[in-house]
Amino acid sequence: MSQGALTIWFTGLPGAGKTTTALALAKAIKEQGGSTPLLLDGDHVRSGLSSDLGFSATDRAEQVRRAGEVALLAAQQGFTSLVSLVSPNADARDAVRRRHLDHGIGFVEIFVATPIEVCTARDPKKLYAQAKAGTLKLMTGAGDPYESPENPDLIIETHLMSTDEIIEQILAALAQR
Amino acid sequence: MSQGALTIWFTGLPGAGKTTTALALAKAIKEQGGSTPLLLDGDHVRSGLSSDLGFSATDRAEQVRRAGEVALLAAQQGFTSLVSLVSPNADARDAVRRRHLDHGIGFVEIFVATPIEVCTARDPKKLYAQAKAGTLKLMTGAGDPYESPENPDLIIETHLMSTDEIIEQILAALAQR
Repeated sequence: MSQGALTIWFTGLPGAGKTTTALALAKAIKEQGGSTPLLLDGDHVRSGLSSDLGFSATDRAEQVRRAGEVALLAAQQGFTSLVSLVSPNADARDAVRRRHLDHGIGFVEIFVATPIEVCTARDPKKLYAQAKAGTLKLMTGAGDPYESPENPDLIIETHLMSTDEIIEQILAALAQR
Repeated sequence: MSQGALTIWFTGLPGAGKTTTALALAKAIKEQGGSTPLLLDGDHVRSGLSSDLGFSATDRAEQVRRAGEVALLAAQQGFTSLVSLVSPNADARDAVRRRHLDHGIGFVEIFVATPIEVCTARDPKKLYAQAKAGTLKLMTGAGDPYESPENPDLIIETHLMSTDEIIEQILAALAQR
């Protein structure tokens, strides 16, 4: 049933720019005449599908698994998904990739490699500030580990390039596939 | 972000004809020029998103909750979902409806009211046979309770009408909304 649908997965620290980039990519895909992608971002998944989960390593892995399964199911029906999740655990991300490849569905991992100093300075949701104040536990990048992808399909640097430039970079990488 | 997207939820016994009807409805919607709906059927959800769940009442309710949250998230982005799940528990279904209405998203519950005798005779997946033989436990309709909707938006009778007639009936009900 797939018509070249795939899953594009943005991983990176809180504040790295994952959802901002995913939203801009969705807009660009539509402007190019592509089908509207499904957006699965951490905040929305957390408040709904994964509202029963916390922030332990086990729960984070399960959150990644669920988002991956939704994206896979959608891709099998021809819908491309853009997933923006911290997804700090490399094994959990790799498991999602394997599930996709096992079903013949493309999986593109994009590492949003914004340095922690930049994320902390941006702090759009004031998470780093809360972690520093001790009112937020189990925060990735502020005590909790983030495992960078060893072989991502693409690395983007939102602190060095404009969103427009990054979207060009992503579209070029997708076109090469 | 919604453009009139909604969730259409098929509930009924195993073998009632939920997925068959959902697939036919998806085809009809596309033929009428509508956007391709997302299909969330029990078998596919069970093998992926809910692969960690069993068939206890608690797990069935969680399965319903997750499918409902995926449909809600999709509808908030303009995608209509067709969900075909036994979803035997009325409270779990009602909770999904409330979540949708709380977010201003339409929810249409269609009761696929095929009598148990007909479902048992059809038995497309040989589930009733396995339940009778004692090799399948916790099966809805064969020991496990099914709570019929008290106020479904539509009741369809796949044992009395052709699929074409039923699709006409559903499209007419949707058009009236």
